[in-house]
Amino acid sequence: METRTRVGIIGAGPAGLMLAHLLARAGIDSVVLERQSRHHVEHRIRAGILEHDVAELLRATGLGARMDTIGFRHDGTNLLFDGALHRIDFARLTGRHVMLYSQHEVVRDLIGARVAAGLPIVFEAECAAIEGIGTARPAIVYRHDGAEHRLDCDIVAACDGFHGAGRAALPAAAAREYDRVYPFGWLGILAEAPPSKDELIYANHPNGFALLSMRSATVSRLYIQCGMEERLEDWPDQRIWDELARRLDHPGFSLNTGPVIQKGITAMRSYVVEPMQAGRLFLAGDAAHIVPPTGAKGLNAAIADAALLAGAIVRWARGEAGALAGYGAAALDRVWKVERFSWWMTSMMHRFDTHTGFDRRMQHAELEYYTQSEAGQTALAENYVGLPFAAPEGVP
Amino acid sequence: METRTRVGIIGAGPAGLMLAHLLARAGIDSVVLERQSRHHVEHRIRAGILEHDVAELLRATGLGARMDTIGFRHDGTNLLFDGALHRIDFARLTGRHVMLYSQHEVVRDLIGARVAAGLPIVFEAECAAIEGIGTARPAIVYRHDGAEHRLDCDIVAACDGFHGAGRAALPAAAAREYDRVYPFGWLGILAEAPPSKDELIYANHPNGFALLSMRSATVSRLYIQCGMEERLEDWPDQRIWDELARRLDHPGFSLNTGPVIQKGITAMRSYVVEPMQAGRLFLAGDAAHIVPPTGAKGLNAAIADAALLAGAIVRWARGEAGALAGYGAAALDRVWKVERFSWWMTSMMHRFDTHTGFDRRMQHAELEYYTQSEAGQTALAENYVGLPFAAPEGVP
Repeated sequence: METRTRVGIIGAGPAGLMLAHLLARAGIDSVVLERQSRHHVEHRIRAGILEHDVAELLRATGLGARMDTIGFRHDGTNLLFDGALHRIDFARLTGRHVMLYSQHEVVRDLIGARVAAGLPIVFEAECAAIEGIGTARPAIVYRHDGAEHRLDCDIVAACDGFHGAGRAALPAAAAREYDRVYPFGWLGILAEAPPSKDELIYANHPNGFALLSMRSATVSRLYIQCGMEERLEDWPDQRIWDELARRLDHPGFSLNTGPVIQKGITAMRSYVVEPMQAGRLFLAGDAAHIVPPTGAKGLNAAIADAALLAGAIVRWARGEAGALAGYGAAALDRVWKVERFSWWMTSMMHRFDTHTGFDRRMQHAELEYYTQSEAGQTALAENYVGLPFAAPEGVP
Repeated sequence: METRTRVGIIGAGPAGLMLAHLLARAGIDSVVLERQSRHHVEHRIRAGILEHDVAELLRATGLGARMDTIGFRHDGTNLLFDGALHRIDFARLTGRHVMLYSQHEVVRDLIGARVAAGLPIVFEAECAAIEGIGTARPAIVYRHDGAEHRLDCDIVAACDGFHGAGRAALPAAAAREYDRVYPFGWLGILAEAPPSKDELIYANHPNGFALLSMRSATVSRLYIQCGMEERLEDWPDQRIWDELARRLDHPGFSLNTGPVIQKGITAMRSYVVEPMQAGRLFLAGDAAHIVPPTGAKGLNAAIADAALLAGAIVRWARGEAGALAGYGAAALDRVWKVERFSWWMTSMMHRFDTHTGFDRRMQHAELEYYTQSEAGQTALAENYVGLPFAAPEGVP
């Protein structure tokens, strides 16, 4: 079967769904193709912190209601080292905040709105090929319900993640990759335990990094830095709780525990591909760049890409011929700033086996400077709440 | 010959001379011993940027007149990358500034004041031993005019630089060293050429770092990053000027050249020893810590140590028995902050052969962030003008 749309979007993650949502509000047709089932993407546990302007974009485009009901506003975060807690007061330092609201809830809101409006989204649609990106009529070939389909478009937006077909379709000669794999991972659990603190705690402990986060008033999300070679079998629940209690310990703190309902190990990587576009193919989100989770930037960077791409497409659709050409450079300008912050937070908060005594002291001096100096705290806060971006021009 | 004083000071560099100066104003006797001749130390070309509070300390203690006549106030500095100049406006960001005034001029002012007051300072006095630091009556044994002398003291202040006897006298079991040697050096020239810019320029160029600085309205001080293995013979003057012109190039800039009157290669190192005291022995300045020259912190850190040590000695002399014990920890708290800034500026401004493509992009993103963000600029500025320190209590 052949269909036709203006913008073919591969991937119903935050980038693809937000792009489709913004284009719909500007009256531009799109079709979203997603490899997984609706149930799968609506229940996939990912990030949980929305930058200030991401939350504002959801509100401004009619999707803020559930977030403002079941989400939590965080006006600050905490850094813990030498057994002492240091609060970074976002509200005082920047006048901005973040929202604790899970990625899969954002995905649910976006899918719900699209389905309710009767706009096309195809689940269990496996992208087989992206064709003709050097022409004005590219196409996405995909398999669905046992048949092969072809979606003819003006523009292909690859929002299909790090392992998707989008990046692979960039002409190899033009693409340059930048990559760093960190020598540790995060062992994470989801537990039926009320959060032990109302805001996050990022801890740098001699045993390694730990993060206290949460999903809701009754569910905690907790992580510890672990070796690359470690396996889940090495970490029975009690060992995890003991290690969390050790790394998060500080005066007045006690760790709430409860049944562990999910457990996993995440690798830590920084990655960027340049350029983020080729002909009529445009990449957004994890398809083009990965950050380590320290600082919670992955989801937010994907939404910022989607807003920039939507803005470029809207201007192009209104006759501004050169509008598409500027997307990649504008997106990368912001992406590198976000990559820097994620790399810096990761470098400052983790223990590295390769560190000399001098390196450890430099890390410690960084922790002291960025928690003691007003300018240092502001530098951390303004990146954490998110570098400003606006809802695209022309999107009501 | 045996003499007796309260504080025996080894070294007539900025730390030792400032310590003696502050103690004298508080009515506490000291003797300064210096290995070199007066002419040598008054003509030794070193650093040239005084932090805000160092300049204030000179003024507050009667030594600001020459600095304010022949020195220059700098209200900002410049970072150059991608061919574009970015000014860091100290005055607007912090309300503070730095003074361009050479180290050897500070030394000359301090020696002049001491000699004019008839206070003891012995040149060409080679320290042979530091004895009895575990007792209340330590002594410095030194050679002068072909004879051995003994200076009995209450306190020994080792302000004798990185290669001095002071650090070697720390009990080895108690001392811990932190060290980093950078894989490049600075090739520096002093030239009879008016400065090409009224403020410094720190340049990160694909060929390596360059620094434009100055001594006066007619003398320029210029540096380029060079390999560890390079020799002065490899760098005829014209090659240096060509490379400076290349690395410092930006719109509207032209490099003034002139006769090269001094040329040298400086190694780049970060170093700290802990503790900075043992019994009645106290280290200050380069004897205890070294910074790479990026950011101009060496002289300033030495003066801050001297002010802290003078304060501790004054309080101790007035009967506060525990005052001496706190010196080392207070000094190290500031030292590590200064080490961090010098390491960070060095890391951000130089080219490292070991950098991957990702590392280079992180360095570039740091340059962009710390020149574009108000908080980032303030973080750089407040460290450059100097973390606050006060004239010691009880010193008029």
